[in-house]
Amino acid sequence: MKTMGEFDLIARYFKRPERHAQRVALGIGDDCALLAPTPGTQLAISSDMLVEGRHFLSTVSPVRLGHKALAVNLSDLAACGAKPVAFTLALALPSVDEAWLAGFAQGLFALADAQGCELIGGDTTRGPLNICITVLGEVPVVNGKGQALLRSGARPGDDVYVSGAHTAHGTEGVGDARLALEAFRGNISLPQAHFERLRLRMEAPTPRVALGQALRGIASAAIDVSDGLLGDLGHVLKASGAGATLHGHAASAHLHESFTNATNSIAANAQPERITGLFSPKYLLQMALAGGDDYELAFTAPASLRSAVQAAAAQAGCTATCIGQIDAEPGLRLLDAQGQLLKPDFTSFDHFA
Amino acid sequence: MKTMGEFDLIARYFKRPERHAQRVALGIGDDCALLAPTPGTQLAISSDMLVEGRHFLSTVSPVRLGHKALAVNLSDLAACGAKPVAFTLALALPSVDEAWLAGFAQGLFALADAQGCELIGGDTTRGPLNICITVLGEVPVVNGKGQALLRSGARPGDDVYVSGAHTAHGTEGVGDARLALEAFRGNISLPQAHFERLRLRMEAPTPRVALGQALRGIASAAIDVSDGLLGDLGHVLKASGAGATLHGHAASAHLHESFTNATNSIAANAQPERITGLFSPKYLLQMALAGGDDYELAFTAPASLRSAVQAAAAQAGCTATCIGQIDAEPGLRLLDAQGQLLKPDFTSFDHFA
Repeated sequence: MKTMGEFDLIARYFKRPERHAQRVALGIGDDCALLAPTPGTQLAISSDMLVEGRHFLSTVSPVRLGHKALAVNLSDLAACGAKPVAFTLALALPSVDEAWLAGFAQGLFALADAQGCELIGGDTTRGPLNICITVLGEVPVVNGKGQALLRSGARPGDDVYVSGAHTAHGTEGVGDARLALEAFRGNISLPQAHFERLRLRMEAPTPRVALGQALRGIASAAIDVSDGLLGDLGHVLKASGAGATLHGHAASAHLHESFTNATNSIAANAQPERITGLFSPKYLLQMALAGGDDYELAFTAPASLRSAVQAAAAQAGCTATCIGQIDAEPGLRLLDAQGQLLKPDFTSFDHFA
Repeated sequence: MKTMGEFDLIARYFKRPERHAQRVALGIGDDCALLAPTPGTQLAISSDMLVEGRHFLSTVSPVRLGHKALAVNLSDLAACGAKPVAFTLALALPSVDEAWLAGFAQGLFALADAQGCELIGGDTTRGPLNICITVLGEVPVVNGKGQALLRSGARPGDDVYVSGAHTAHGTEGVGDARLALEAFRGNISLPQAHFERLRLRMEAPTPRVALGQALRGIASAAIDVSDGLLGDLGHVLKASGAGATLHGHAASAHLHESFTNATNSIAANAQPERITGLFSPKYLLQMALAGGDDYELAFTAPASLRSAVQAAAAQAGCTATCIGQIDAEPGLRLLDAQGQLLKPDFTSFDHFA
């Protein structure tokens, strides 16, 4: 720990060369940043605060934490179909740890640059570690109507989708981050390579920014999955005044696929009561439906736009898996692989207590 | 402490009836808020994070804290001459204390409503108390040129001003908040009424929002005084590539005035070495020049616009006290009441160690 003032700290780690971006008229260094909004757009704004122990583990590398702090905010823009423009960063630090700051800034700016999202201001202060980012994005207005994807647009008959991706390291989808967390907690044991892959999904999630934008004009509603698929989908249903019937196994299919290959080398090492059913279809279903922290998009679209949804996903380098349909009847009905209704309390299950 | 979820907490304390404001197309309750910027304006954005013990004392009432958390952000908009539009609030709370939340929301919304600034989103989480607000304001663009007041516009010959106000309870200006802090620390003792007035200045400062807007087109540079007049003015000088000569006593005159009346009833009750010179002109000068946390505006304007400055201040219900001039020569020269140069180290004095 060195003594470094707030201004030195900002100058060294967070002030970057002028980029002469057209929309950012003035960046870091004055009382406010100044942004020139693109004519004919609405501004999408979201703030997220990350606290150690709740949103990240103390073991996370600062590079991944810098990435994640921005990623969870970009994910909110993605869920609205907004194009990232700029962000502010407020940072409370218990001490000035230069190695930590350098790593944090590296992860932060790598993602910011990849998404064309510029750091325009913020605040640093001493205090318990806390990271608060506010992102600003833009959505076009067409014929006087903003094109943002809202939670309230799902209509009966619409398909329900969840995003994912095929990568060189395996198939990504909902449940990945929760499985990594369970491994951290000692509740499950995973082969090293498998664990590292899932850990990356938890510590450095990929916000589906391109997918969100590609879904404008196609999806009827969208949300990002931070708290768990069923819980977050519940917000869409509530805002839309609708219900849904879900084929849960479709959401966990990618987990089955990867675990079937790995099962032989997997050993449960935790409390005996947790071992029962571990990696069973039901366990993986729970992970996919209630896990959260993956920052996939859950969205709905009219059945007539199925091919458009797949084209948008392909264009964004993502997958879109249909997991059910919106109903007029309120509530969430969950079907098993055989099409039988699972008992209702399953859908409210949430904390794996 | 009760168990209340994040969504209940937001709904109960921070979600308000729809106000159908034209600029806020969508407020709290989706992944992002949506804002329709006024055509022909630039957006001014600032974030401030408040941590207990650094930015407020644990003894502060939640009503005043709610006010202050927004006030320090509005003060940044004021320093840019921006009109407040909207803000996001991210709040980390050690527990859900409903009385605290109700008070905090009361203070926050009273100021927000008075300034026409709408809460459009944010985040709540459990963690060490931390308040992070991001404000959004607008400044007009005239003939392609944004009208924001920047730190970089001070020119040699410009007058240097600091804001204040005459109120029913006395004259407000820089140094008030620091005097209250010194009283809290037990370094000075003040008559109760005097202390309560200064305490209000520290705990619930008035952002000079109307003054900032009135100074557009008049002031050449501006900043808000959060860290101390000399330090903050130093940022203006650095950004403008200039220096200044200041008549420091002009900045502390309002303190002299009020303390001359009160001196007889004032007793110093702290360490002997602090008593020497207490409430002396030099002590009050230190308070005014280095105190901070008052959120007055320090600004510069061409000498030809003196009457325009006073008219703007009067229009905003504020005072504007000329405390010196901008020089081409870098550095800050401080004169005493007799026009003699004070020793240079005085100007770098900062923490009253």
